[in-house]
Amino acid sequence: MNRLHRACLLFCVLLIAAPLSAGDCERWGVYEVELDGPTEGNPFVGVTFAATFSQGDESIRVPGFYDGDGVYRVRFSPPTTGEWSYETHSNAEGLGGKKGDFSVDEPGRGNHGPVEVAHTYHFAYADGAPYKPIGTTCYAWTSQPEELEEQTLDTLADAPFNKVRMCVFPKWYSWNEVDPPRYAFEGTPPDEWDFSRYNPGFFRHLEKRIQQLGELGIQADLILLHPYDNGRWGFDNMPPEACDAYLRYVVARLSAYRNVWWSLANEWDFDKNKTRDDWVRMIGVVTDADPYGRLTGIHNGYELYDHNDPRLTHASIQNGSAAEDAGRAALYRDVYPKPIVLDEVKYEGDIPLRWGNLSAEEMVHRFWEGTIAGCYVTHGECYLADDDVLWWAKGGVLKGDSPARIAFLKEVLDASPREGLNLIDKWQHTNVCGKPAEYYLVYLGAGEPTEWEFSLPRHELEDGMRFKVEVLDTWNMTTTPVDGEFVAKQDSQYVFKDESGRVVDLPGKPWVALRITRVKE
Amino acid sequence: MNRLHRACLLFCVLLIAAPLSAGDCERWGVYEVELDGPTEGNPFVGVTFAATFSQGDESIRVPGFYDGDGVYRVRFSPPTTGEWSYETHSNAEGLGGKKGDFSVDEPGRGNHGPVEVAHTYHFAYADGAPYKPIGTTCYAWTSQPEELEEQTLDTLADAPFNKVRMCVFPKWYSWNEVDPPRYAFEGTPPDEWDFSRYNPGFFRHLEKRIQQLGELGIQADLILLHPYDNGRWGFDNMPPEACDAYLRYVVARLSAYRNVWWSLANEWDFDKNKTRDDWVRMIGVVTDADPYGRLTGIHNGYELYDHNDPRLTHASIQNGSAAEDAGRAALYRDVYPKPIVLDEVKYEGDIPLRWGNLSAEEMVHRFWEGTIAGCYVTHGECYLADDDVLWWAKGGVLKGDSPARIAFLKEVLDASPREGLNLIDKWQHTNVCGKPAEYYLVYLGAGEPTEWEFSLPRHELEDGMRFKVEVLDTWNMTTTPVDGEFVAKQDSQYVFKDESGRVVDLPGKPWVALRITRVKE
Repeated sequence: MNRLHRACLLFCVLLIAAPLSAGDCERWGVYEVELDGPTEGNPFVGVTFAATFSQGDESIRVPGFYDGDGVYRVRFSPPTTGEWSYETHSNAEGLGGKKGDFSVDEPGRGNHGPVEVAHTYHFAYADGAPYKPIGTTCYAWTSQPEELEEQTLDTLADAPFNKVRMCVFPKWYSWNEVDPPRYAFEGTPPDEWDFSRYNPGFFRHLEKRIQQLGELGIQADLILLHPYDNGRWGFDNMPPEACDAYLRYVVARLSAYRNVWWSLANEWDFDKNKTRDDWVRMIGVVTDADPYGRLTGIHNGYELYDHNDPRLTHASIQNGSAAEDAGRAALYRDVYPKPIVLDEVKYEGDIPLRWGNLSAEEMVHRFWEGTIAGCYVTHGECYLADDDVLWWAKGGVLKGDSPARIAFLKEVLDASPREGLNLIDKWQHTNVCGKPAEYYLVYLGAGEPTEWEFSLPRHELEDGMRFKVEVLDTWNMTTTPVDGEFVAKQDSQYVFKDESGRVVDLPGKPWVALRITRVKE
Repeated sequence: MNRLHRACLLFCVLLIAAPLSAGDCERWGVYEVELDGPTEGNPFVGVTFAATFSQGDESIRVPGFYDGDGVYRVRFSPPTTGEWSYETHSNAEGLGGKKGDFSVDEPGRGNHGPVEVAHTYHFAYADGAPYKPIGTTCYAWTSQPEELEEQTLDTLADAPFNKVRMCVFPKWYSWNEVDPPRYAFEGTPPDEWDFSRYNPGFFRHLEKRIQQLGELGIQADLILLHPYDNGRWGFDNMPPEACDAYLRYVVARLSAYRNVWWSLANEWDFDKNKTRDDWVRMIGVVTDADPYGRLTGIHNGYELYDHNDPRLTHASIQNGSAAEDAGRAALYRDVYPKPIVLDEVKYEGDIPLRWGNLSAEEMVHRFWEGTIAGCYVTHGECYLADDDVLWWAKGGVLKGDSPARIAFLKEVLDASPREGLNLIDKWQHTNVCGKPAEYYLVYLGAGEPTEWEFSLPRHELEDGMRFKVEVLDTWNMTTTPVDGEFVAKQDSQYVFKDESGRVVDLPGKPWVALRITRVKE
């Protein structure tokens, strides 16, 4: 240890973030320990820093990180209320062995904790509140000019979306041939980088955006690596050790934010600089480093990753054709007993590429088909623009007609059984989901029927059970109650019908759904 | 060792099966070493017996088995021609250490070797000849009276099927409430068994039937365990050790037959006496015991097994809805990069249960949809009969209208590219399979179009390539060539069409397919 180093350590100061409430932090909030430490050499590489946070018999070791200018931080998101203590660990004298105590309050209003897997195929917040993802896609929205980013946040504040797929790195691609305002690494743009030195300013900006999403109730499905570099910066072609160190740095900085999900990659198989084994390794780097077990996925291009990897919490799938038909989407649930998130089903828009020119009707239809299958669908929008600001990559404003209809679907979902929707009779009635004998959604798609025979899969039904029916026009966003009630009567060993054979009259339009709810009083 | 034991060993005799040809055996045939050995105690349990077969640097250890009456056998299927030698191993004095040499000839006419996985999603015989499974289902055909079994063989001799799903154990189920002529174990029927003592006569009978299938060019997809016991015999409720020993005995007896496939179970998840871990273990028992790596699968009821288990060579799937639409079936190929065999897509028939009353048209349609998806479909037939002989379980005669149409499909497959069919543009054109720029099958399903626009996915196409088109009526089994040729011209970045915009005139009937073949001369 040189003299400068010693001198620095001599003056290091223990700083604690100001208390947020009566306690020092709220449950599932962020408690940060900040210490001054050495600056010489390359602290990103040379200095290890972590802390163990303890409450009673439980202790959680949390990685810290160097934030530049001699400042080291470790961020902890307490999973329980009450008194916690910590002790730091470091290979640098003076950084390790620091201890402290703090108290954790009940979560504040709107803080339901992180999202977790629930009921095998669904999600819930840690406090048990339902979370039903209605995602959108703004890959590079945090790599845009300030004004555009603020506009994106304003748009999201009024949009139905509660999850955003977004990249750490910028994107060099059609309609995306602009250098970003800042980079994750030190170096000389566009392509001379020191992958061993991070740019704290870049990450502070990213953190701010993630926190702002959190304030809007939006999950940040953070894409850690992607192939859309096209030789511009080389972030898709870092050596394995640099990839791993980068992943550990990101996890150390961000994992305490309760609205963060890890998406190892977008279109992992389109990154020709990495092998499947690289992805296997990197998933481990992330999940080993993350003390909280945040939701973790990996998204494909043409070739699916094996989502049965137990480290993956959900299947993040690109396949437009799967969302054309609930009977297709539902097959994924059979092979991956996890939440199925159809994170790319093509986008609403008008670009010449076939993945970006769905009609709004087709986009909404795919949301409904995926939903009926008991899966979750993600939106995207690619309308050509003079300024090359396409929502799909840069954010800005939404121009399409699907978001309003997706908001209508979200209302339906919010009023549906909290444990999530499942096909009732999965390989037989692929357009009927819900909760047996309680709640059903029947989706009739592009057909234009003028009536629907009241007929439900037998599961848990009994003769005499009474149901009310509402006709949902998913495009025109209307809900029309049907007069009277329908009374279940077993018709065969497989289905119940109305006891008087009553049918539901329909408007002869496409995109109609039926909501059927048990009447119990 | 007692005196009786010693006396017995003293007289043990080395017997070799009579030579089959100029050599002692043909490649991929069965070479059997027969030895006399101890009879006291329970030789099935107490005596180990195996042999190592060697040629040059290669050696293969093959399990042997006790065949009753003091006879021990080990059966070897040589993978190569030329000189081989063997040495036996046993814990019984006189059974081990026996050596011999034999020569292996070229395979005889019709012997293409065992079927193996080829080109990821397909199969081929070991000699490279294509094998495209067109299976049927006769679960308990080898547990029937002699006359009925012979009738089944006669039927199969004239049927298009080259694979039969068949159980080792009998079946107690609707239309199957008869005790079989013989049992796999010693004991007192119906339900008092010594699971540690096998009935060699039962297995000799089974082996004979498997060999007879082999002579007909039919693979025996042998279902080792199944849940259709319903308390009658208890073969679905053996202790784990008995299951494992039974599996090892079956593998030792049968693995040398080149037309054997292992199907660990039918509807594994319907067997409530076993856990998923039991199946994980038992797959290992079979694959560890099998010196040849015969094709191995496990077939589901309602819950899929994880076919990404590397010990499983193919995915054997029950899901009727998957075969209703090539776009569904094809999804399995994305998640299991192996051959996908849709081994239960419901059956043609007229029983009241919905899994057994497909129309012949629907059965054939499902064959076509599965084929277009690049998967393989298995037939079954359940027509009610006064004698309760339904083909699906007991065999007998085929009564349905689908087999003739399946034979027509088989002819089409036999004339298609040997490496197998794949969707050309998997998530975009789910009704177009083939080999890019060489061969296409387009299936139009239940629609009744009067024309088809000549339009093919771009892959490997070039302007000016010429194609002939045939209209296949898959139900009426006609092949109608279309006059003249179609000439490819790029129409968009995604498809080529005919340069003059020519369409194919169609008869306005359902179940039509198009065969499009490149003209090269």
